[in-house]
Amino acid sequence: MPKEKPLILVTNDDGITAPGIRALLEVMKELGEVVIVAPDSPQSGMGHAITISDTLFCEPVTIKKNYKHKEYSCSGTPADCVKIATQEILHRKPDLCVSGINHGSNSSINVIYSGTMSAAVEAGIEGIPAIGFSLLDYSLTADFEPSKKYVKKITQDVLKNGLPKGVVLNVNLPKLPASKIKGIKVCRQANAHWEEEFDKRTNPQGRDYFWLTGKFVNKDEGEDTDEWALKNGYVSVVPVQFDLTAHQFIRELNSRGLNE
Amino acid sequence: MPKEKPLILVTNDDGITAPGIRALLEVMKELGEVVIVAPDSPQSGMGHAITISDTLFCEPVTIKKNYKHKEYSCSGTPADCVKIATQEILHRKPDLCVSGINHGSNSSINVIYSGTMSAAVEAGIEGIPAIGFSLLDYSLTADFEPSKKYVKKITQDVLKNGLPKGVVLNVNLPKLPASKIKGIKVCRQANAHWEEEFDKRTNPQGRDYFWLTGKFVNKDEGEDTDEWALKNGYVSVVPVQFDLTAHQFIRELNSRGLNE
Repeated sequence: MPKEKPLILVTNDDGITAPGIRALLEVMKELGEVVIVAPDSPQSGMGHAITISDTLFCEPVTIKKNYKHKEYSCSGTPADCVKIATQEILHRKPDLCVSGINHGSNSSINVIYSGTMSAAVEAGIEGIPAIGFSLLDYSLTADFEPSKKYVKKITQDVLKNGLPKGVVLNVNLPKLPASKIKGIKVCRQANAHWEEEFDKRTNPQGRDYFWLTGKFVNKDEGEDTDEWALKNGYVSVVPVQFDLTAHQFIRELNSRGLNE
Repeated sequence: MPKEKPLILVTNDDGITAPGIRALLEVMKELGEVVIVAPDSPQSGMGHAITISDTLFCEPVTIKKNYKHKEYSCSGTPADCVKIATQEILHRKPDLCVSGINHGSNSSINVIYSGTMSAAVEAGIEGIPAIGFSLLDYSLTADFEPSKKYVKKITQDVLKNGLPKGVVLNVNLPKLPASKIKGIKVCRQANAHWEEEFDKRTNPQGRDYFWLTGKFVNKDEGEDTDEWALKNGYVSVVPVQFDLTAHQFIRELNSRGLNE
């Protein structure tokens, strides 16, 4: 008896028309029944923002006439898209949620700022196995072809074996031709950060304003990190949790006598 | 020889004019030299959003004429406020960053959606000891008086003893009169979530839209959680980390043969 095809929710943070989500769609169509619910405009850097003080629009759209799956464009954030998809659009709980393929890295500390990963985390909170995919190429004309093989392999693994409760995957793909990608490495998040630089300008009315810029600084030399894997030609897979408790510090904090 | 007063950066997500940040200011003025850099409008639910596709304004404001400290109003998110404060406003790295006092809970999974906590986490990433404070009362007329004693105690502890690298504190305060607060408990984040409900309406032009609503569901019965502490009259202190790696799952994931 053929099993029902898995239901796969596809979203992203670059917006529903971004090339990255089209590449992800191509892979997911081979693996299950796909529904896309994605932001109507780019949402990069939105972190785990949700829309609580404004209205949300979410409507069916036709991106290509011959598509058999359904697509919905949503005025909210990536996390909003997952919430509205599971509550208002899908007829059952999806078997998987995939987010991406993001145009640009979400490795290391970028996971904190990432709209792509916030969608995956939101799905994880709702008990749905979830993966965020990102390619280390910010260009709108990025080549997603070499990524597809790895996106498919990792997705198949999660469909088959699931993920532990409270864990989602953060997958980053190096900007390399297929022949140069060495394989997949399971990693920890590198301990790196951004050093901000604000580009200060003055507007025509004489008011100062800023553009946020900065450079990524990684002093973590561990060979078990996502940064190391990506620099050395591997696809990085970091298991990500949303229990943020620093459990190892509870005992020390208790010994400080805060309650005396 | 008197030591230089600690430099304390104060921010929030309810906006620079919210009563909660005024209560926090009152406490911090007793403990150090205060600079406020806070959003010019409410930013609740912003998660760890940052402003990368838009300009940022950040200007000195005078909230009360007799204030001796400096205040800056910023057009961005709480995380933006911390970034711009450390890069463009403060003359040296602050000794502490405090965020809040938030009007409403940031316990349990709310830490993920919280603008208040994103400011603390951003400071933590920059190596600054940081604490987010939230009162379990959404009202604009919330009584912050009973909280002040605990805010002061926890802040003094962090100024004296510091925090480990990579850890910030998420402090939630029960909505209780001073006489009913039993003390402080160091906790883990309760494993709870929101069950969303979308309130669907139709606008005057006939277009459907949604308001996000929902109810908070906690099935975690542990007595070591923030939810338990708050329900039982304690101030909850959860050490929060921004290394999101689910380290305990790396070995299992490696055994799956993803790289074969």
